[in-house]
Amino acid sequence: MIKTFTYDELLELPSRYRGRLLNKASGLKPANLIGTQSKAGTVNLAVFNSVVHIGANPPYLGFILRPTTVERHTYENIKETGVYTINQITTAIHQQAHQTSAKYDRNISEFEAVGLKEYYHHDFGAPFVAESLIKIGLCFEEEHYIKCNNTRLVIGKVEHLILPEAAIAEDGDVMLEQLDPVAIGGLDSYYSVELLGRYAYAKP
Amino acid sequence: MIKTFTYDELLELPSRYRGRLLNKASGLKPANLIGTQSKAGTVNLAVFNSVVHIGANPPYLGFILRPTTVERHTYENIKETGVYTINQITTAIHQQAHQTSAKYDRNISEFEAVGLKEYYHHDFGAPFVAESLIKIGLCFEEEHYIKCNNTRLVIGKVEHLILPEAAIAEDGDVMLEQLDPVAIGGLDSYYSVELLGRYAYAKP
Repeated sequence: MIKTFTYDELLELPSRYRGRLLNKASGLKPANLIGTQSKAGTVNLAVFNSVVHIGANPPYLGFILRPTTVERHTYENIKETGVYTINQITTAIHQQAHQTSAKYDRNISEFEAVGLKEYYHHDFGAPFVAESLIKIGLCFEEEHYIKCNNTRLVIGKVEHLILPEAAIAEDGDVMLEQLDPVAIGGLDSYYSVELLGRYAYAKP
Repeated sequence: MIKTFTYDELLELPSRYRGRLLNKASGLKPANLIGTQSKAGTVNLAVFNSVVHIGANPPYLGFILRPTTVERHTYENIKETGVYTINQITTAIHQQAHQTSAKYDRNISEFEAVGLKEYYHHDFGAPFVAESLIKIGLCFEEEHYIKCNNTRLVIGKVEHLILPEAAIAEDGDVMLEQLDPVAIGGLDSYYSVELLGRYAYAKP
């Protein structure tokens, strides 16, 4: 049996039911931890499933930030310091990663609270996750205020990329399947992956 | 051995090497086909790995569109008709989905070229993919021009959501693992997934 919902029918659903349904409907999502530090020096770590590739030349990544009407430590820290890190979630740390979504006070380090290690690279001013096999350091580039629901697209320039040399193929491909990666479904489901295939540049 | 790249080192890499490296670095991505139709009636279908959840109340999804300096049939059709569909890629159709990335002329239907079936729902003016188990019909809502590299964030409102009733849990969760889903790595790698766990709303 196929179930169909119109826009009006979606709006009539209970809020959490609708949230679960729509968060899963767009498919699997990238699994990352964003690390930041306040001006006062408190570190913050938060799970994000909305990191999106903006471009490779020059290298930019974006992510979607929910409305800032409630406290958003990640956003406040990025605005204060201009820098942040995007760290890959592996199957080994996916439960700790999920726990960072709890509402800790701003003076609490989620690294300590969930048991992940901070890692610092040269003088870059935001904490990386030591356990993450892919670590990216970014500086804030631009943001877009999304009018329809008060969210934001935050874009950063890649200042540092750190990953295991053995996972980089000769042509620059990263063999993700060797790096214990995780995909997220909705807000609460985590998936391991298996390579189906890598295909040539398609031609008509 | 850990390999590190600074921004300057990334810029010095050969263009395709850098593209492969950075497209994989942000992790697994959602796998969707976007279906559109021109005013003249030609249908178009294109693989996208950049669909991002914008909000559930009301329901919005976004995707990133590369620079419009080359032909972008998906974008042109959305601007002409105001509607489009986002269709889940399954393992069963992932190779056909990849083939839609070939540069077909605008008067060619990628549905026909790769062997996927069009599906129409009520009077909605864009083609869905019959083989996709999750089908979403959207109308254009807003777009943001990303200054740093001439890409665009295109946002649409969900007008129709179509999926198998048996995959919807009582609480609204969609059991993606029952729907043969695929995640994309970079521009050319496709992954099947296995559920690791679904976790409760995290509390400190």
